[in-house]
Amino acid sequence: MKSLTEHLWFNTPTRRAFINITPKVEELVKESGVKEGLCLVNAMHITASVFINDDEPGLHRDFEEWLEKLAPEKPHSRYAHNTFEDNADAHLKRQVMGREVVVAITGGKLDFGPWEQIFYGEFDGKRKKRVMVKIIGE
Amino acid sequence: MKSLTEHLWFNTPTRRAFINITPKVEELVKESGVKEGLCLVNAMHITASVFINDDEPGLHRDFEEWLEKLAPEKPHSRYAHNTFEDNADAHLKRQVMGREVVVAITGGKLDFGPWEQIFYGEFDGKRKKRVMVKIIGE
Amino acid sequence: MKSLTEHLWFNTPTRRAFINITPKVEELVKESGVKEGLCLVNAMHITASVFINDDEPGLHRDFEEWLEKLAPEKPHSRYAHNTFEDNADAHLKRQVMGREVVVAITGGKLDFGPWEQIFYGEFDGKRKKRVMVKIIGE
Repeated sequence: MKSLTEHLWFNTPTRRAFINITPKVEELVKESGVKEGLCLVNAMHITASVFINDDEPGLHRDFEEWLEKLAPEKPHSRYAHNTFEDNADAHLKRQVMGREVVVAITGGKLDFGPWEQIFYGEFDGKRKKRVMVKIIGE
Repeated sequence: MKSLTEHLWFNTPTRRAFINITPKVEELVKESGVKEGLCLVNAMHITASVFINDDEPGLHRDFEEWLEKLAPEKPHSRYAHNTFEDNADAHLKRQVMGREVVVAITGGKLDFGPWEQIFYGEFDGKRKKRVMVKIIGE
Repeated sequence: MKSLTEHLWFNTPTRRAFINITPKVEELVKESGVKEGLCLVNAMHITASVFINDDEPGLHRDFEEWLEKLAPEKPHSRYAHNTFEDNADAHLKRQVMGREVVVAITGGKLDFGPWEQIFYGEFDGKRKKRVMVKIIGE
């Protein structure tokens, strides 16, 4: 069994952001030498997500508006978590969007449908945060 | 390490549908010869889900009504994504229901609790779409 | 390839509860002897979740209030699923919070970010229910 462990670092200038990380994950799959296996990609912080959806700016604006309606950031005082912090909404948004994706590796590549792209979803940015990529297989 | 890669195809007559795919996945686990391992089942399209829940028609009607309340299909114009398309709601619904499941394989079988069943959740049907089944183990 | 299959049992005195299961999963990783691999932790019941988030009581109160708003328990008659049962809301809440997590194992340990903790989320308790831990790797 082969394995690879790598981290991707982010420091977004805005509180919320969606970043396409597919090319970086593809590079790591190639680097791993794994031909058949699984690739786990997960946020290592609990106010961020990794998810697979469409790389379309209109949809990302829809996500932003929709998540604000489901779990509004403000007023910060609406959440019991926000005593020393102001990011309870980010913990909730991350549950909707998910912590991780597991992607099949076939023939040495991410085995994707036509429009699948992997995104880092930041909900409490402006600081350094990490994503883990773990690849196992043969 | 053994592995198996297979696709399940769907073409639902309705825009939205829930289809129990457990028997097909079980067959593939048997075919793979894997006794101990993991089985990844994921939608390859970003307006569809794979999830595990109850095979009970009342619950599926509840899911339909609940998802329409959380992310209504219409009016199509409410979403920035809907310029050439009308399926923004399907991209959102799929986030709530999830892209994938990972199921343990023990003793050559899906290692399930008493009521766990795997479903394909279609949110933008009436066309050919695929689900991936990837099995790895020994 | 090494593998380990184990179950954690719960019987919560309340209908809903969040229980930190990280120490138990860490013990099983050690017991497995796996140094590099993946650890799947999933609810075996379809009215419960396994998820990763913060071990902070205020946030757990926020989760409880938020999930009750997204998928209210009562009146039980609002759900088509509730003919002989009263737990449709629990099936919906579990979709928001998720069935499972997959965690990387590196150097014989759960490879976690600074605040990641694994929780069992119970939405229809007061009876015996199980979580599966499946570990594969080398």
